[in-house]
Amino acid sequence: MEEINRLEAIAVPVAARVGDLVASIDTPGLILDLDAFEENLRKMQALAERHGVALRPHAKAHKCPDIALRQIALGAQGICCEKVSEAIPFLAAGVRDIHIGTEVVGAGKLALLARMAGKARFTVCADHPRAVEALSAAMAEHRASIGVFIEVDIGQKRCGVQSHDEAVALARLILRLPNLEFSGIQARHGGLKLAASLRRREKSSLKAARLIRRYLRALEQADIECPRVTGGATESAVFDVANGAYTEIQAGAYAFMDADYARIDWGEALSFRHSLFLLATVTSVPEADRAVLDAGVKSMGAASSPAFAENPGWRCVAVTGEHSVLRARNPRALPPLGAQIRLVPGQCGLTFNLHDAVIAVRGQHVEAIWPISARGLSR
Amino acid sequence: MEEINRLEAIAVPVAARVGDLVASIDTPGLILDLDAFEENLRKMQALAERHGVALRPHAKAHKCPDIALRQIALGAQGICCEKVSEAIPFLAAGVRDIHIGTEVVGAGKLALLARMAGKARFTVCADHPRAVEALSAAMAEHRASIGVFIEVDIGQKRCGVQSHDEAVALARLILRLPNLEFSGIQARHGGLKLAASLRRREKSSLKAARLIRRYLRALEQADIECPRVTGGATESAVFDVANGAYTEIQAGAYAFMDADYARIDWGEALSFRHSLFLLATVTSVPEADRAVLDAGVKSMGAASSPAFAENPGWRCVAVTGEHSVLRARNPRALPPLGAQIRLVPGQCGLTFNLHDAVIAVRGQHVEAIWPISARGLSR
Repeated sequence: MEEINRLEAIAVPVAARVGDLVASIDTPGLILDLDAFEENLRKMQALAERHGVALRPHAKAHKCPDIALRQIALGAQGICCEKVSEAIPFLAAGVRDIHIGTEVVGAGKLALLARMAGKARFTVCADHPRAVEALSAAMAEHRASIGVFIEVDIGQKRCGVQSHDEAVALARLILRLPNLEFSGIQARHGGLKLAASLRRREKSSLKAARLIRRYLRALEQADIECPRVTGGATESAVFDVANGAYTEIQAGAYAFMDADYARIDWGEALSFRHSLFLLATVTSVPEADRAVLDAGVKSMGAASSPAFAENPGWRCVAVTGEHSVLRARNPRALPPLGAQIRLVPGQCGLTFNLHDAVIAVRGQHVEAIWPISARGLSR
Repeated sequence: MEEINRLEAIAVPVAARVGDLVASIDTPGLILDLDAFEENLRKMQALAERHGVALRPHAKAHKCPDIALRQIALGAQGICCEKVSEAIPFLAAGVRDIHIGTEVVGAGKLALLARMAGKARFTVCADHPRAVEALSAAMAEHRASIGVFIEVDIGQKRCGVQSHDEAVALARLILRLPNLEFSGIQARHGGLKLAASLRRREKSSLKAARLIRRYLRALEQADIECPRVTGGATESAVFDVANGAYTEIQAGAYAFMDADYARIDWGEALSFRHSLFLLATVTSVPEADRAVLDAGVKSMGAASSPAFAENPGWRCVAVTGEHSVLRARNPRALPPLGAQIRLVPGQCGLTFNLHDAVIAVRGQHVEAIWPISARGLSR
């Protein structure tokens, strides 16, 4: 008996079960406050509908099919993924309209994309003729077809064609090659997140619209119809829906409102509630004004500081791999050893990518546990 | 047939198989150059043995049992883990001496630790009497026993007792309570990694030794024998083995030599080779001096810049969730669309924590694929 006990493998205990009290969740534990989450989803969907623009939530922000299905049930057009493999669990869960918002290069990835495009409506980005040719060949081989967006660089300085001439030439190629459909253009402002002022985000959105319209005019002059324009982001959504350039908005973080997003100015126009938290436990109180929590970069994913949901007088003074150090301005407000603390992660997309599941809670109870099935799918 | 094809689920393709050429690995792919890795392991083990100090590699750096078993086969004392759940796959793989290098709080975690302590030699840290009492009670309940290190704060400003009196009181408590054994003290300098100069790391190690000796003297004056002193790190190892204070050295990154470590000055004393790389593919070449790679923070884990193994004239100018942007000083040196690039991750521990497996390569071929079984085990 003793011997059997010694040999029996120890499994990783579950962090929580449906019906459990939130207070009993093992830490660090990723929780989603469903009331705040649902309010955020409804608010962004209503904004898009008010302006007659489609909402295509970016699944890179959560990597969780249960979340995508709720976004779609409320009226979202489909989803956006950042990588080909990332789309696999969403397709398996029944999502039928998936845009891969990046360039795809490599025979293996193109074959995978073609197999998926045989099962649902897929679109993808391209910014190079060789990539478009390879895409067409892969689709033909798998008897599939795919919609292609030309990515245009309107200031993000990452991918995307740099000129109207390149865009027109690429559109002609897409229209000429078999098994491809020209879907339109993808244009992301990029780098806006840290622009704190609402005014500056408005200017960036208006500038994006001007640059997009010039691309549309160039295509029009070449007699090429541009069916859709995809892009935009949470931080500029309120302007992107209204600037007249986008037919669909890609936004992801709005559903969660992480600490980085919460630090920027939202004005009266549109605001979201924190819905994503990392539960942590105080494991050390070495000094009167200092407490150490059992959650760090390995469960939060960003070196940018988390915020504390419960007490604005707490500051996070250090985040290491598995710990965060909290300082209390008022030592009497220091949380005691064993206290459970809610951290607001710095960047939700990085946080989801570290966890196998998110614990969906309503009030003080666990309502569901949703697998983060696309976690780690970066290929 | 058509219908069956439509319903058949698509699985995530494997990144590589044993025997494959490295050039055929799907990207982003985490690879370990076995020649460099084995040389690093031998070098650190030899250093420790030369000074009669035990080497206890920190498994938080890799989370991979196959790596730990190789460290132990070469003479390492056992391993260090940063969290309780992290130890589960190492125990299952046959590691029989595991130190949990942090404070553990919470009934569930203590029960798990007690169950594991019934199967192998475990030690853990404590810095608070209530935590020591809870530890003793949990061990008694599971009829297990555990060794306890008192963590002392010698400048890390995270966990640890702040005074000799606290340390002596805690040691007495550990010696008095059932199912506990007093193992000694854990003392980490902390915050040294960014100290570029070798001279400053030497000073820090010597200062650590002075502070540790004062703790040892306080314990001795209280008639308490201190069996072991654990701590140290890769960046100060060459001094830590020689400063006379440590009986065992915790080091992790030495096996991989990530980009952050490579940026500091190593002098003649001890140096390691890059063994860990993230393979990426060029997916866009939008301008003559700019290429975009398909690997970002979600597969590297740190916002600190990766280094490029192949070309020192390449600079990484931006890292986003799934992409990195490379600029070439000389446009003729820009890698072409589809080229495979080796990135040296900024911080190896964060990188391993994002991948399910590491692809072990020798020369141009895949030799083995090792599961990173403790990935995500932050509880």
